[in-house]
Amino acid sequence: MDEQDSRRILEKFGNGILEDIERSKNPKFITAVRSRSNILYDEKKGYLKLGPSKEERNFMNVSQTKRFMQTIAIAAKCHKFVSENLHTTIRGLFYQLKYSLGEDVDENIFSEQAESNPLIEDLEVALGMKREDMNLNANRKGILAGNMKVIDKFGNEKIEIDASKQGRSGWPIPSDVDNDIEFVDVKAKYVLVVEKDTLWQRLNEDKFWGKQNAILISPQGQASRGTRRLIHKLSEMGLPVYVFNDCDAWGWYIYWTIKTGSMNLAYIGQAIATPEAKFLGVTMADLEHYEFLQKLTMKATDVDIKRAQEMLNYPWINKYKEWTDELKMVLKTKLKLEEDSLQAPRLTFVDDYIVDKIKNKDFLP
Amino acid sequence: MDEQDSRRILEKFGNGILEDIERSKNPKFITAVRSRSNILYDEKKGYLKLGPSKEERNFMNVSQTKRFMQTIAIAAKCHKFVSENLHTTIRGLFYQLKYSLGEDVDENIFSEQAESNPLIEDLEVALGMKREDMNLNANRKGILAGNMKVIDKFGNEKIEIDASKQGRSGWPIPSDVDNDIEFVDVKAKYVLVVEKDTLWQRLNEDKFWGKQNAILISPQGQASRGTRRLIHKLSEMGLPVYVFNDCDAWGWYIYWTIKTGSMNLAYIGQAIATPEAKFLGVTMADLEHYEFLQKLTMKATDVDIKRAQEMLNYPWINKYKEWTDELKMVLKTKLKLEEDSLQAPRLTFVDDYIVDKIKNKDFLP
Repeated sequence: MDEQDSRRILEKFGNGILEDIERSKNPKFITAVRSRSNILYDEKKGYLKLGPSKEERNFMNVSQTKRFMQTIAIAAKCHKFVSENLHTTIRGLFYQLKYSLGEDVDENIFSEQAESNPLIEDLEVALGMKREDMNLNANRKGILAGNMKVIDKFGNEKIEIDASKQGRSGWPIPSDVDNDIEFVDVKAKYVLVVEKDTLWQRLNEDKFWGKQNAILISPQGQASRGTRRLIHKLSEMGLPVYVFNDCDAWGWYIYWTIKTGSMNLAYIGQAIATPEAKFLGVTMADLEHYEFLQKLTMKATDVDIKRAQEMLNYPWINKYKEWTDELKMVLKTKLKLEEDSLQAPRLTFVDDYIVDKIKNKDFLP
Repeated sequence: MDEQDSRRILEKFGNGILEDIERSKNPKFITAVRSRSNILYDEKKGYLKLGPSKEERNFMNVSQTKRFMQTIAIAAKCHKFVSENLHTTIRGLFYQLKYSLGEDVDENIFSEQAESNPLIEDLEVALGMKREDMNLNANRKGILAGNMKVIDKFGNEKIEIDASKQGRSGWPIPSDVDNDIEFVDVKAKYVLVVEKDTLWQRLNEDKFWGKQNAILISPQGQASRGTRRLIHKLSEMGLPVYVFNDCDAWGWYIYWTIKTGSMNLAYIGQAIATPEAKFLGVTMADLEHYEFLQKLTMKATDVDIKRAQEMLNYPWINKYKEWTDELKMVLKTKLKLEEDSLQAPRLTFVDDYIVDKIKNKDFLP
């Protein structure tokens, strides 16, 4: 979706509302219910998405009038941002909304950002566009190195960035990897996602991605929308995606968010989930194959235990015997394990671990 | 300090211990007390540093024997990392230590990282080298764009990175900007530090740094060791440093940490503080000059109020009338203000605000 598409969709939306008014019809639009009751796991496709329940937003419903007006104000602002070819955040948008009506009207159109955020989601769903398409940057996080180039459409420039020549720093993954970024020369054979930036640096220093012809990504903790979308796109190009995380609540959560998407973002699940992703490690099963790790375990926290129990109830997880075995072992031993521990025998051991795991197809689904 | 210097210092340290043992002397070394009682504000130089109190660590003191042995083990590991030209983190070091003795000895040399961290600081102080010189990466954070180039000594490569050609992503500031990075062609006239990455992106999109011939940095929240060191080095080159943060507890803290250093890192204050830094805004005083901001204030939280009261007691802050006025206004009005709010009239307003502030020298010391 380029800038013209975004403008066209927003204009069509605005014109539809205007037409309704001119014809003395009640202005309205349709969005999808985003509450938990309407979030489904698509068994066939392998990700979380919204179900069929729809909601109407209309102006003549007293309880909705204010929110309807606010939504139109948001759409108008976003249309302006897209036309100016300038980006901001949902916080920047909020301040513009708070300010703009304020010039003429004594009342604030918004007083808290908590009011505007769900209305942006309403628009995303109703118009079938992501907030990134409306020039609203999401929090960016994530770093990449490997044999690929990107063209960054940066204002009136087109900047080519070679992700194999970013040195120890790597290339920071932007918020919007659709409209702003073009992928060229993706020569790598697979994608390795590493939870922690420190381990990413370790592997980058070893030129792991060069030796293995891989693309090395760290979401730097929980994956941002942009990083999830980028992983999804690389997967769509046919590259296998392996995720290398801690064996604990946080590591599992980061993995499943990449693989099946999350409840919060089920409304864009199709665009950001990577159902083909595999969990490379670290796992409780590693304790057998790599005996030295037995000395390096930690006690699982209450959060880890609670999370493992919850995961056993999710149908998209408990359908895999490999995962139920793994989680039951966590509950039995009450232990956890960090990916950092693989540096213990020597700093480069982690490289060998990953290569062996991939070679032996020793990963969880 | 290059790799050879680091090795030389660590070897000299080890040889000194060996000599003591050979001469049947009690092996020992001297480090500085790092507790609050020995942290001083250097009025003349303008940063927090350690005072004159020293401590001896010696092997024959029963209460110190274990820690002495642990410290030597740390130094030996770091010597190995430097010799291999490989980096890790203090977490990676901890796992190596936990593992290594474990092969022969039934007892763990370390059971918690909380044991190894202060001993690394002991070594940093005793040997006058930073952990970065021992190939221990600190958490990296911070992003940069502007008219400068860096040479990244990345393993056996030397990669030139042009910080004006990194597009919307920018150049991530590495952990060690001394040994690994060389600055070349620093053509910019000043440094602008912007607390929030989202505002950095806003200004970067406007090519603010190009129009102003500035170096645009975001610490992305609290500044990492690497980012503080980099700002310090640019300041040493004669570039004025302006900091653009929120007017709240966190924004002030980030500023003062950049300017005078922090208690925790007083032991390397000289290397990472930038006493010449100025606080550009946002300020309570802005509410007069930029009337629209009056609609965009928020209630100060208890944390903001408490922090403002504390700051009034710090001699390095209350010596400036501009700061006591500012803080008293916060305590009186109980308001706070975000830098994001400057996008309210139009997205590019924030650019003009900064330019005007610098032109009019309208900043706090």
